[in-house]
Amino acid sequence: MHLKTLEDLFQDELFDIYDAEQRLTKALPKMADKASNPQLAKGFEDHLEETEGHVRRLEKVFESLGIKPKKEKCEAMTGLIAEAEELIKHTSEGSVRDAAMITAAQKVEHYEIATYGSLIALADALGHAEASAILAETLDEEKSADRKLSEIAESGVNSDALQEAA
Amino acid sequence: MHLKTLEDLFQDELFDIYDAEQRLTKALPKMADKASNPQLAKGFEDHLEETEGHVRRLEKVFESLGIKPKKEKCEAMTGLIAEAEELIKHTSEGSVRDAAMITAAQKVEHYEIATYGSLIALADALGHAEASAILAETLDEEKSADRKLSEIAESGVNSDALQEAA
Repeated sequence: MHLKTLEDLFQDELFDIYDAEQRLTKALPKMADKASNPQLAKGFEDHLEETEGHVRRLEKVFESLGIKPKKEKCEAMTGLIAEAEELIKHTSEGSVRDAAMITAAQKVEHYEIATYGSLIALADALGHAEASAILAETLDEEKSADRKLSEIAESGVNSDALQEAA
Repeated sequence: MHLKTLEDLFQDELFDIYDAEQRLTKALPKMADKASNPQLAKGFEDHLEETEGHVRRLEKVFESLGIKPKKEKCEAMTGLIAEAEELIKHTSEGSVRDAAMITAAQKVEHYEIATYGSLIALADALGHAEASAILAETLDEEKSADRKLSEIAESGVNSDALQEAA
């Protein structure tokens, strides 16, 4: 598909993140299942619920634009999830695996922060006020999920991982 | 390679970003070449110089740890660069392509912001003060590159793209 206008680019980015969020709803239950730290497991479970909400919000954005929801394979999210799975494969159950999953999950969060940031800038430039407001709600949740992961790493997982190896 | 300790995870993340930064030094000249907005072209050229500096800084980190620099294929950066190339392929020369390259470049910056953030947290937990300080310099430059891209989008590229299509 050739992108001729800023509107085409905006929709293309929406199709990309609509695919990415759905891939993530499949990856998060596995990450929750593999987490040893109860706070981290709960963090992944909570973020799964939020992510399902992000999918529904994207459907509201498509509706507000009068277009049909469409997925376009997100190569970056595919790569990010592959990296998370590799890290799970190359660690044993415990705090080092938890620390590894936190690094992988924060990369995912930042991919989404960048994408929603661009989408909001494009929506604003295009005058799509309703879409912009809906996307901003999700951006806030992605930023908050990133901060929570840092807190979990700093409040216990990293120090547990040091002791585990000692 | 099995990651048994937090140190193993730290080194694995370093090998990943060492590969990612070098992939980026190959992608940035192409992006500068394809940019129509002179500020954006200069932004990519400046960031190429910075990225070459990030590679050298990582070599200083490896030296401070007494280990040999090693690259491990970064699947996520491979995916991010593939997405940027797809966007170039699916746009014509002009402001819409510029806007598309900015969205792709901000995803790259956020990948690096997440990675350096995790690396610094791991270096701090492990007591690698020198490595942490070196990595923090790069993190600041990645954050600044992301902000500059937002400014370029907002100060002209997005509005030019609207007019171009009109």
